[in-house]
Amino acid sequence: MDKRIPVEVSARHIHLSQNDLEVLFGKGYQLKKLRNLTQPGEFAAKETLDIQVSSRKISNVRIIGPVRKNTQVELSHTDAIFLRVNPIVRDSGDIEGTPGAVLIGPKKKIKIKKGVINAWRHIHCNPKEAKEFGLEDGNLFSVKTRGRCSLTFHNVRARVDKNYRLCMELDTDEGNAACIVKKGEGYLLI
Amino acid sequence: MDKRIPVEVSARHIHLSQNDLEVLFGKGYQLKKLRNLTQPGEFAAKETLDIQVSSRKISNVRIIGPVRKNTQVELSHTDAIFLRVNPIVRDSGDIEGTPGAVLIGPKKKIKIKKGVINAWRHIHCNPKEAKEFGLEDGNLFSVKTRGRCSLTFHNVRARVDKNYRLCMELDTDEGNAACIVKKGEGYLLI
Repeated sequence: MDKRIPVEVSARHIHLSQNDLEVLFGKGYQLKKLRNLTQPGEFAAKETLDIQVSSRKISNVRIIGPVRKNTQVELSHTDAIFLRVNPIVRDSGDIEGTPGAVLIGPKKKIKIKKGVINAWRHIHCNPKEAKEFGLEDGNLFSVKTRGRCSLTFHNVRARVDKNYRLCMELDTDEGNAACIVKKGEGYLLI
Repeated sequence: MDKRIPVEVSARHIHLSQNDLEVLFGKGYQLKKLRNLTQPGEFAAKETLDIQVSSRKISNVRIIGPVRKNTQVELSHTDAIFLRVNPIVRDSGDIEGTPGAVLIGPKKKIKIKKGVINAWRHIHCNPKEAKEFGLEDGNLFSVKTRGRCSLTFHNVRARVDKNYRLCMELDTDEGNAACIVKKGEGYLLI
């Protein structure tokens, strides 16, 4: 049985801790919402930062709100290769041993010692959907996309929470390889 | 049965006709070899060109020799999106209806009306290998890569010729999505 999953492509982005946000933008600063994202509560902020690693820089990288416990930069492999950092595939939040970078804000710049990751491909779903799919939080499974550039993504991580909305998140390399620019769809292979 | 296929990632590159080569570099110009490529007779040339589409430019794009009948620019989707051209997936040589670009050489620049493609993922193999794999020239099949970023590439085109050396060619988006930077391996799924 085919099980359809909406697919979204996430461009490079930054999650900030409140402390780092205030250093970069000023004391007491609050992120301003540009638009809501698919996952409830998550939003693209109006604010962007530049990311620098030695002489290489990527400008105007979108911050995603709300603030989190730890600052984390999510790049595609293409971005990481451009910045000459080793692209390490990690689940969100699992940043021990990952590369650092300099984040340049309007007030100041900060050097983070870790937190640059390539996000492990994953889906968000709620417990009811997970049950229908036969999945539990943390499970790995496969999702196939269709069309001329059809791909099957293996080792897709299931992330289950009652607040999640069903969606597979790919980075821009994965989306481009599947010829999916912003949104598409995939089918769970059980 | 698993059937191993070496995988190579092709960065953006340009094939030139002799006529376009001479306009860009001067009358009677011959490409200079930088290094041989995997397919016999093919080589990375010392020469590069800049590719421009309206205000966007990608500099120092490698020319691949020898010259061909028609000029053709092979980009990843990431590159095409950056240049704001529609990335059209095509077999090499099938350039009717594809976007054009301006190619900037040391002597002159030329405007090509067509020829910018995203190369259809493919393998090269010789007739003996094709027979072992149960493939014929032009067939589509699937190849799986391994590891944390494991992907199955569907719709991989078989290109069979007695001079070909066995290799699957991916673009940089496809390679990056599979965490293969330059070389890797895949397994034919029959």
